Amino acid sequence: MTLPPGNTHILRIECDDEKGLVHKVTGVLYKDGLNVVQNDEFVDREGGRFFMRTEFSGAPDAKKIIRALRARLPSGASLELLKDRNKAIVIFATQEPHCLGDLLLRHAYGELHADVLAVVSNHEKLKDLAAKFKIPFHHVPYENREKKASEAAILKILNRRRPELIVLAKYMRILSKEFVNRFPNRIINIHHSFLPAFAGKNPYQQAAVRGVKIIGATAHYVSEALDQGPIIAQGVIPVDHSHSVTDMAQAGRDVEKIVLARALKLAFEERIFVSGNKTILFD
Amino acid sequence: MTLPPGNTHILRIECDDEKGLVHKVTGVLYKDGLNVVQNDEFVDREGGRFFMRTEFSGAPDAKKIIRALRARLPSGASLELLKDRNKAIVIFATQEPHCLGDLLLRHAYGELHADVLAVVSNHEKLKDLAAKFKIPFHHVPYENREKKASEAAILKILNRRRPELIVLAKYMRILSKEFVNRFPNRIINIHHSFLPAFAGKNPYQQAAVRGVKIIGATAHYVSEALDQGPIIAQGVIPVDHSHSVTDMAQAGRDVEKIVLARALKLAFEERIFVSGNKTILFD
Amino acid sequence: MTLPPGNTHILRIECDDEKGLVHKVTGVLYKDGLNVVQNDEFVDREGGRFFMRTEFSGAPDAKKIIRALRARLPSGASLELLKDRNKAIVIFATQEPHCLGDLLLRHAYGELHADVLAVVSNHEKLKDLAAKFKIPFHHVPYENREKKASEAAILKILNRRRPELIVLAKYMRILSKEFVNRFPNRIINIHHSFLPAFAGKNPYQQAAVRGVKIIGATAHYVSEALDQGPIIAQGVIPVDHSHSVTDMAQAGRDVEKIVLARALKLAFEERIFVSGNKTILFD
Amino acid sequence: MTLPPGNTHILRIECDDEKGLVHKVTGVLYKDGLNVVQNDEFVDREGGRFFMRTEFSGAPDAKKIIRALRARLPSGASLELLKDRNKAIVIFATQEPHCLGDLLLRHAYGELHADVLAVVSNHEKLKDLAAKFKIPFHHVPYENREKKASEAAILKILNRRRPELIVLAKYMRILSKEFVNRFPNRIINIHHSFLPAFAGKNPYQQAAVRGVKIIGATAHYVSEALDQGPIIAQGVIPVDHSHSVTDMAQAGRDVEKIVLARALKLAFEERIFVSGNKTILFD
Repeated sequence: MTLPPGNTHILRIECDDEKGLVHKVTGVLYKDGLNVVQNDEFVDREGGRFFMRTEFSGAPDAKKIIRALRARLPSGASLELLKDRNKAIVIFATQEPHCLGDLLLRHAYGELHADVLAVVSNHEKLKDLAAKFKIPFHHVPYENREKKASEAAILKILNRRRPELIVLAKYMRILSKEFVNRFPNRIINIHHSFLPAFAGKNPYQQAAVRGVKIIGATAHYVSEALDQGPIIAQGVIPVDHSHSVTDMAQAGRDVEKIVLARALKLAFEERIFVSGNKTILFD
Repeated sequence: MTLPPGNTHILRIECDDEKGLVHKVTGVLYKDGLNVVQNDEFVDREGGRFFMRTEFSGAPDAKKIIRALRARLPSGASLELLKDRNKAIVIFATQEPHCLGDLLLRHAYGELHADVLAVVSNHEKLKDLAAKFKIPFHHVPYENREKKASEAAILKILNRRRPELIVLAKYMRILSKEFVNRFPNRIINIHHSFLPAFAGKNPYQQAAVRGVKIIGATAHYVSEALDQGPIIAQGVIPVDHSHSVTDMAQAGRDVEKIVLARALKLAFEERIFVSGNKTILFD
Repeated sequence: MTLPPGNTHILRIECDDEKGLVHKVTGVLYKDGLNVVQNDEFVDREGGRFFMRTEFSGAPDAKKIIRALRARLPSGASLELLKDRNKAIVIFATQEPHCLGDLLLRHAYGELHADVLAVVSNHEKLKDLAAKFKIPFHHVPYENREKKASEAAILKILNRRRPELIVLAKYMRILSKEFVNRFPNRIINIHHSFLPAFAGKNPYQQAAVRGVKIIGATAHYVSEALDQGPIIAQGVIPVDHSHSVTDMAQAGRDVEKIVLARALKLAFEERIFVSGNKTILFD
Repeated sequence: MTLPPGNTHILRIECDDEKGLVHKVTGVLYKDGLNVVQNDEFVDREGGRFFMRTEFSGAPDAKKIIRALRARLPSGASLELLKDRNKAIVIFATQEPHCLGDLLLRHAYGELHADVLAVVSNHEKLKDLAAKFKIPFHHVPYENREKKASEAAILKILNRRRPELIVLAKYMRILSKEFVNRFPNRIINIHHSFLPAFAGKNPYQQAAVRGVKIIGATAHYVSEALDQGPIIAQGVIPVDHSHSVTDMAQAGRDVEKIVLARALKLAFEERIFVSGNKTILFD
């Protein structure tokens, strides 16, 4: 569903499950005269948790609504009431232009639902690409440097830019646990394999060695454990024996950029809940 | 979502859209102490129509619930409260065994969510197949016979068997308008093309002539106009220049049977609303 | 298969089928000490035609090879011996940036196997995009002008630029028969539907009205009859009842750009034969 | 390509790569007046190996052809000249009917390109299914028994039935190394995950825990190392957070049976070469 133009808000709720939650939540919005545009809910029966995302139009008195919901929902409920608007992001990349270029194109033509504040890279190769689209480019080299020093330099940039989300668009360095833990569920990575197959280095090489007939890409939140964070989106394409590692990498690029864009659309439109190591997507 | 075992009911509502409908409907169920298992709703903004399907467990007093809903919903609302149970169906087929065989296998192993009352065919070729699965087989020949006489014979069988739904599993005769109109949105057909491409006769022949690179299958409700009823499910597979018409037909069979089974699952679980010439699927 | 670096040539043959053709063709190359890298052949049995594409490395004496082949192959054989190199292309576009942008990005990073000589547009909107990538942009307006005058202006540009292929990257004007016939099998278009479904105008609107569950895109050679030229590549994505026409158009853009790029790769690498209204792809 | 009716033979060659091989092989067939129907070759450049499969019609003097090829091809070449005919197979299954049932249906209607000699199972549940299709059923229980004793009983059956290929159609026991090594590249298994993800036990459980958005199935040759043999075919379907393990298993069944059937078609038509741990498919 497209977000309708104008004054759209998104209500996100996560709490322990109990009977009547949908009735109670929709009641609060109804009594305030707000118009529900889209409503999605999900109950994780194993965990006994309730998740709900409601998009509505109208001019809400946010404090009043939150207060009314608090009074009706189980204690400890997580509640967010957000105006639907572009997210502020910083994109990290290394040398490959296809994901970054694709995002900058979408951004330039108003299709990203995000404002790209800056590009950070450990190489200089993509500087020109960022410049074409007039996006600030920060070169933070990695070679001959402690990871700590490099990440400190990046953090300084982020402290200044203040992105809501960080997008790793083929950023080929592993971020430290300390860095990752500063941005829980706020870093999204595109990994060039169909995770959990071929985590880690050189997934296309691994895929060629294993002789798989389908390769893929996975967009996921970055967590402490490498390539093991909650998966947001995955895509695949067929390959065959004639594909060298280079061919696979080339074929894989189109999947990577499409899967990353799909995951970001979900994130920017506040359609993702993270529950344990899984995502719940209200698409 | 799997239907949980036991006492599951499904509430289906279609009415003019207005604010607060979800709140009202869930309120009626909540007050009756019923436990919502899955809830889906959709508003067709162009038509101003509201569609809702709610699966719940518990022992409802159906009359009371319908009465309470009538009092709260816009006048003219269409309301159904159904116990979740196997649908009664009759399958029509002609000579090809793949769709019929697939359905009979699923049926035999309790995966169809339907009871197959009988098979009707204008040929005798599939008699053995029905017999393997101990399903009554009615041969209603077509050759040298008026369509009217043939359909009258079929209607006699249906009047006796009383199916809720008729499944055309590669039934290669065109049913008359009169016949079709007796079963509005109760006949589901599998057409061996990606409709609206290649409606009518010999779709694989048409596809080969046009040189398409993907072929498909379409499951749809049967309406008066040939191959133009509301689409329920579609599937595709790639082909190339080396595929003869025979190759396409062979490759297409697997898509046909999977797409038909998918559509039937939706129908048997009451997940389909028909709105004009479109379907709304709560999957 | 990746084209190996260096001195690669491509031999393309089309002729009447007879026994021993592969033996004869490979014999000519073998005697010349050339090294076959990839070899594909296809016999269209209905038409009795033989198609062969052979990629080989080494330094061929082209005249001698063609002479030797002429002596051995059926009379009337079509023979091409080409050095593998970037194709010269001109891209036509109107207002939508996604296909043009995607091609310019691939071009900028050496992934297109083509040199983009210029962009031609009937609007000015994409001028900036071409400028970012330093590609000459020709604005040939269409409004208040005879189609003839507009096409004459375009032809003047093409006469100067001399492209081998013309790419219609969401060019929303219908070219005249006269124009099309000047470039037989040299104009490639991306149509935003799964042809032959929804040819002509507003395919997403048509798809929404018909209620299809899958939409697609088709790259094809442009012939006199609108949207009926030989199909090169097709791709699809699922949609559902919640997709408005705008949603479909947005979802479709990613398929359009990927399918167009796939078709162009095949064309630029000389992997396509056109036989009647079909393509034979040696992928 | 469909196998044409009648007298079709298949020539399969594997040898060290050198120039002129295609010329030499096709020359031998040409001089014998045989008519090549389809010809495929592949050079594994890393390993320096040449693979060729040629389908031809006519009445070959097999000994003469093999002798002529031996004289022209590198020493140590592996050569097979086979009449195209149904393969003899035995199917192993445990309790799930969907793969076995699908294969028996195809078999019953002449679509399997194989003769099913018998079904072997460690349970009795599928006995009725085999009986429906009049296929001998051997119950070789596993519980309370040494694997050795059980496999010895199976081997006795196989010694009598003499299948060319063994198909594991959801056979849920792990075969011993000794057993597997008796049938190198002659046992084909369907594994219910997208290998190498989720090898071993309970792949759908593993997939649910990891929160993947796509699940799949893999048909592969069985080798000593569990789920690590050469992959023949893979297929996938999307899933989401609402899929329980049971839902995934149900959705996965359709992929399993289609992927297994696809792999078997390739094997039965002699279209697979195994090179190291990979397959080369001439489709």
